Amino acid sequence: MTHDLLKEVRELTGAGIMDIKEALHEAGNDKEKAIEILRKKGSLKAGKKADRLAKEGMIETYIHPGNRVGALLEINCETDFVARTEDFKHLAKEIALHIAASNPLYVKPEDVPAEVVEKEKEIYKEQIKDKPEDVVNKILEGKIAKFYEEICLLEQPFVKNPDQKVKDILNQAVAKMGENVQVKRFARFMLGN
Amino acid sequence: MTHDLLKEVRELTGAGIMDIKEALHEAGNDKEKAIEILRKKGSLKAGKKADRLAKEGMIETYIHPGNRVGALLEINCETDFVARTEDFKHLAKEIALHIAASNPLYVKPEDVPAEVVEKEKEIYKEQIKDKPEDVVNKILEGKIAKFYEEICLLEQPFVKNPDQKVKDILNQAVAKMGENVQVKRFARFMLGN
Repeated sequence: MTHDLLKEVRELTGAGIMDIKEALHEAGNDKEKAIEILRKKGSLKAGKKADRLAKEGMIETYIHPGNRVGALLEINCETDFVARTEDFKHLAKEIALHIAASNPLYVKPEDVPAEVVEKEKEIYKEQIKDKPEDVVNKILEGKIAKFYEEICLLEQPFVKNPDQKVKDILNQAVAKMGENVQVKRFARFMLGN
Repeated sequence: MTHDLLKEVRELTGAGIMDIKEALHEAGNDKEKAIEILRKKGSLKAGKKADRLAKEGMIETYIHPGNRVGALLEINCETDFVARTEDFKHLAKEIALHIAASNPLYVKPEDVPAEVVEKEKEIYKEQIKDKPEDVVNKILEGKIAKFYEEICLLEQPFVKNPDQKVKDILNQAVAKMGENVQVKRFARFMLGN
């Protein structure tokens, strides 16, 4: 167990040094596993840490030149430490810009109300009603996936690199920062809309 | 009828010169009345003008240092001409800052759902149930007014000068700019809330 690893887990969790040593030992020096163990044992600092796991991050905004479109974003990570890094701030800016440009309506597919999905399905079913049933289901699946790609932030092609989805950008950030990173909510206003 | 007045109405409405001359004559050179007349006659430019009456303005934002609180605002005026003035931009900034600081929940009393108001009234009634009925109504009125002052943007004391309400600030802007100015909507995010 290196001192750096211990220090890093300490910064990420705020747990006691002895608890961290034990957890790292138990996890074979795997950082993620050690944090998981600490979490299960409840040895994250003073209970408050559990709140902080979902609550750190930042509020970011992007206003398009001309002030006719703007976005407001809450993006979360686990620690204030990560929230203050340039990487995290850059990520927040990129996502805010993406929202202003690509006009998502929801963060993720689970957020789309069931009745909205049902209504879409009805329309698609009407369009393909003459096909055999197994084909219909296949097509329906594809069309709903396409629908989510249009209206859900995480499923949208990232505006600065359409080969990747926004969720890929977030996953890369998670891997790089070693923390869970989530878009909690956003608002997007367009003048007169 | 001065040339300046004609020019001003032209800028505000986009109507034809002859229509404006007639309207100003009919209105005794009262600008507001002339615009009203033009509106009724439908001589505002190409129908599109009627839309623009509510749709110009800007999207403004304010993020409090530290990025834990932020606001997004749509504020409307009648013409792009006014929207681009420094006065209007300054007003938008002030209101966005106020929203971040004072956490309103609605723009105006009419926007508060009836059931929310009813629930408040029930609580107040319970508090003062021993008083005579005429006194009760008087107190209720006062308490509801106070409630609106807490949760409605336009009724809140302006954060930079609590002697004035936000609606006073807007009314002053209307008087100065000679256009209807309205806050259409806002969003306010606080980290982890």
